[in-house]
Amino acid sequence: MSQLPPWATYIHHDSSEVFLSEIAPRIGDVITVSIRLPSDADLRALYLRSRPDGEWKRIRMALDSRQGWYDIWSAELPITMVHNNYCFHFLTADGSFYFNQGGLSPIDSPDWFSFTVLGDYDPPAWVREQVFYQIFPERFANGDPSNDRRAGEPTLMGKPTLKREWDERPQPYPESRTVEFFGGDLQGITRNLDYLTDLGVTALYICPIFDAETNHFYDIRNFDQVAASLGGNKALADLRHELSQRGMKLILDITPNHIGFHHPWYVDARQNPAADSADFFFRDTDTGAVEYWLGVPVIVKLNYNSQKLRDRMYRADDSAMRKWLRPPYSIDGYRLDVANMTGNYRRTQCGSDVWREMRAAIKAENPDAYMMGEFFQDSSPHLQGDQLDASMNYQGFNTPVRRWLGKGDLGVADEQPFGDPNPLPTESLALQWRQYLTAIPYIIALQQFNQIGSHDIDRILRVVGGDTALVKAGLALLMAFPGAPCLYYADEVGLDGGRDPDNRRPMPWDAALWDHDLRRYHQRLIAIRCNSHALQHGGFQILHAAGDLVAFMRQSRRELIVIAVWRGADNMAETAIDAKLANLQDGDSLTDLLIGERYTVSAGALPLSGLAHGQALLLRLDA
Amino acid sequence: MSQLPPWATYIHHDSSEVFLSEIAPRIGDVITVSIRLPSDADLRALYLRSRPDGEWKRIRMALDSRQGWYDIWSAELPITMVHNNYCFHFLTADGSFYFNQGGLSPIDSPDWFSFTVLGDYDPPAWVREQVFYQIFPERFANGDPSNDRRAGEPTLMGKPTLKREWDERPQPYPESRTVEFFGGDLQGITRNLDYLTDLGVTALYICPIFDAETNHFYDIRNFDQVAASLGGNKALADLRHELSQRGMKLILDITPNHIGFHHPWYVDARQNPAADSADFFFRDTDTGAVEYWLGVPVIVKLNYNSQKLRDRMYRADDSAMRKWLRPPYSIDGYRLDVANMTGNYRRTQCGSDVWREMRAAIKAENPDAYMMGEFFQDSSPHLQGDQLDASMNYQGFNTPVRRWLGKGDLGVADEQPFGDPNPLPTESLALQWRQYLTAIPYIIALQQFNQIGSHDIDRILRVVGGDTALVKAGLALLMAFPGAPCLYYADEVGLDGGRDPDNRRPMPWDAALWDHDLRRYHQRLIAIRCNSHALQHGGFQILHAAGDLVAFMRQSRRELIVIAVWRGADNMAETAIDAKLANLQDGDSLTDLLIGERYTVSAGALPLSGLAHGQALLLRLDA
Repeated sequence: MSQLPPWATYIHHDSSEVFLSEIAPRIGDVITVSIRLPSDADLRALYLRSRPDGEWKRIRMALDSRQGWYDIWSAELPITMVHNNYCFHFLTADGSFYFNQGGLSPIDSPDWFSFTVLGDYDPPAWVREQVFYQIFPERFANGDPSNDRRAGEPTLMGKPTLKREWDERPQPYPESRTVEFFGGDLQGITRNLDYLTDLGVTALYICPIFDAETNHFYDIRNFDQVAASLGGNKALADLRHELSQRGMKLILDITPNHIGFHHPWYVDARQNPAADSADFFFRDTDTGAVEYWLGVPVIVKLNYNSQKLRDRMYRADDSAMRKWLRPPYSIDGYRLDVANMTGNYRRTQCGSDVWREMRAAIKAENPDAYMMGEFFQDSSPHLQGDQLDASMNYQGFNTPVRRWLGKGDLGVADEQPFGDPNPLPTESLALQWRQYLTAIPYIIALQQFNQIGSHDIDRILRVVGGDTALVKAGLALLMAFPGAPCLYYADEVGLDGGRDPDNRRPMPWDAALWDHDLRRYHQRLIAIRCNSHALQHGGFQILHAAGDLVAFMRQSRRELIVIAVWRGADNMAETAIDAKLANLQDGDSLTDLLIGERYTVSAGALPLSGLAHGQALLLRLDA
Repeated sequence: MSQLPPWATYIHHDSSEVFLSEIAPRIGDVITVSIRLPSDADLRALYLRSRPDGEWKRIRMALDSRQGWYDIWSAELPITMVHNNYCFHFLTADGSFYFNQGGLSPIDSPDWFSFTVLGDYDPPAWVREQVFYQIFPERFANGDPSNDRRAGEPTLMGKPTLKREWDERPQPYPESRTVEFFGGDLQGITRNLDYLTDLGVTALYICPIFDAETNHFYDIRNFDQVAASLGGNKALADLRHELSQRGMKLILDITPNHIGFHHPWYVDARQNPAADSADFFFRDTDTGAVEYWLGVPVIVKLNYNSQKLRDRMYRADDSAMRKWLRPPYSIDGYRLDVANMTGNYRRTQCGSDVWREMRAAIKAENPDAYMMGEFFQDSSPHLQGDQLDASMNYQGFNTPVRRWLGKGDLGVADEQPFGDPNPLPTESLALQWRQYLTAIPYIIALQQFNQIGSHDIDRILRVVGGDTALVKAGLALLMAFPGAPCLYYADEVGLDGGRDPDNRRPMPWDAALWDHDLRRYHQRLIAIRCNSHALQHGGFQILHAAGDLVAFMRQSRRELIVIAVWRGADNMAETAIDAKLANLQDGDSLTDLLIGERYTVSAGALPLSGLAHGQALLLRLDA
């Protein structure tokens, strides 16, 4: 068999609730695993192939039911371990093939490609149901001018604080040197919760707020203290209280990879070789000099070979990271800064150990806490259930979507010679989505932290050259893709901004400056997301990825939604989506959740026509 | 760019000595990494993309030299960690793409696909230069009839020993029940070393020889004692001595996963709940009964949660596994039985920990010792430099080759309903080779343990239905593929045998029963392998995989060999191999190392014609 049979392209399974009787089973459970095959499949036998304790086990699957074009086959899978992988082994008269998380394969691929169901894994299940909103706290709103830093006040490395007016723009680093302040604070967030509720978001991710000297607060000098200029600990407790009143969640940003130059751990270690913290740092083997993070001299890299450091950061009862998980702060999780490098320095590569230990500490405080790490790179080795719950999903969502929509290549934004200004082909978008989904268990994919903007990259409006239609297209993909969507503050009102720190302009509160149409579009999409079981919990299947159109399906036990997004310059010519792929029958009707238009399946196709530039359809199958 | 540029298919790099200035660098070294691009590549820039400490680093590559059709680009890569991964990032006017160990990719794939160079990894470099010969000791030769087990003597579970004559056949398990003995022993091996030297093999892998009750000796009851019927410890010391005289290597088979039912550890634990070995075993949580390996009641699964067990097996100075690495036995390594399951049982999945610890213990005895594990399945997570040196490479070589040549599907051999009797398409053979090579560092690939037969699968002659031409084809692939080839005893004289234990028939010593032509073919190919720098050390590039022809290239700094194998029923029609892929120029001549025929490149092609059924060419580029 040099070719897979034509019906094979219609096989579908994902590790969602549609195909697993339980997506988060306990060890000892037996779950039902099913798969969808076209009813005309010329099949000799079908096996569910698992690998308990490292040995192959083949469980013969049986026809369970018929649904539309398809037969549903199923088998019982005993959950015996933490990491249970499986794939499907098809036998036909002409040969065998496999269906794994990477799709169809003519060979029995390495386990990397397998589906995975985690045993005894407790997902922070609330994450899937949120729409996050990322706030850079110094730039969102000034709720208490009395705590503002004063102009000229010496700060980092003796540089004088620069005080800016709210309607000014951040200056490039050579001028602003991370010490220009606009006055935003936690009180500003608390006072504007009505705005956020009106927008519809349900959870906040706030960039660092602990005592530090720069305006980005990533150079923390006291993990136990919220910066005075952001309102101090009380402002955080107040914010938490108000958020809880509204049923909103809160995650904070912390820096396990490094501390600021003036953190007492480092100050002590420099002054006193016998200090408690003397071994918290890496030193150059030749010069003995302490290693900074990527050579940035205000940020000092932490060395987790030190058991004392592990205690102080997360293990001890009074450790920095445990404190904020407790009342009155009761945060719902952490975004872990520079997670890609944490614990890793030359011969020491103990990041995975640190995450495992940190997970035990954090979950001991709050089993539902969310541990999400910053990774511009592949993070999949840390997303197998024993370490992080999620990553900032740059490679799996953010970067390819920005490249598909505009000049979103990271190298382009940074004006690096390796930047690629060409739009990403749609086939490549789908391939990148699929490969990064293949790398992780689907239960993790459902809680990945997806964005189309953040404080580290050009604003999405800039990436698409001010083309709001494409911002909307990106937003639709964000809301529809598996994982928890997160907006970057002020993107919803059409704030522009280029390279960091221009992407951290103050939130414009004068509504005359807003793009109201864009904001309404955000409200509508957020509401759709928050009310869609399929978008929160459903599986994922690509239906079309060619030309300028990408379409995929999200399906849960309760709901089926087909998402189609057109990036083409002109209106789209009529394009037929293969209805069989989505198991839609002639006569089935779907309604666009955005504008209410109805689409009806006929002749085995879901005809899409007349999509305008940047238009997204979210077509819900009518009951 | 929806398509990769046509010249992209000519890009090649592998982590062999051709493209790395050092394949086994120390941490702190800076190595030169190069890549081959067609000279007409329309390239804007090229980067070597590595990930030190988890962060991306892009190193601009520069044109280094021109060779034939190609430009060689290079860059310096600092080796800073144990596991240094890298890929190549291409920029063209039409877009960017990546070249990783999986080949060309339009996207930046997960790190799984990356090339890897290990830092501070000490390969057992001698392995690449061997041709191994696997011996099932009870069936190779009877050197001392006085130590034979006696018929009727009670053995395993009280069953009487069955004594067989050398020219009888093993009986199926229902009759023989693993207790029929033919009398083979270590003295038999020692006495026949001239035969092995004449064949040309340079290293032995001997199946278990420690005291046990069955004829396969996998139910070990004393790790410190060679079975009396195999000659005892003295016979092993003698064999070692004789092998050393001939410069031959020796690896033994050991069972870290389990012990025999009568091993004192288990006997003690059953009798005395306070025994030292009481916690060496897993017990059913409900019944308290000890768990056997896959339910086989004579083999008891070991539980590495026990620190004492770890001491006894490998950690302590007087541990079982250390003993045989020391004089007078001085073995060169272990084949680790059931490595896929070792350490793994339900919630306990500590296999990787056990391998790391065992590696430290074994390498402390002999830094050059070879640790090779049995895996019918994917073993790549254990082949990243910190655990095993190699696996029995069933998935990466043995199984796909046997499926390509004949009815080699494991399910077919076992008469299982999931067996696929169809020949594997050549494209799938190449895909399976490539995917399993992608999963591991190339320095590991060079020492993978490759076979086309073993004591656990039908003999190759049976798989190909007695078609000796195809046995030869398989042997050529075995000798030419990256890794250390291992023959299974008696395959070279054309011994037939089906399912275990029929595949363990006694070695026929009556030369009248031999296939002399097949044996001479083995001798010739073994000699070629032992004298070929490219086959031992070279990189790997597939040149052709379609129809019934597979062709690939092995190239080292000293030698270039093109291997082509034709499985077709009839003589092959003339087929042109793209000479540019192999960087061969018109007029270049290559000589077949097997029959001396000369092939000359013309019009950009290496024309192969008239290959007979099963014929292999090993074409060495003439100086």
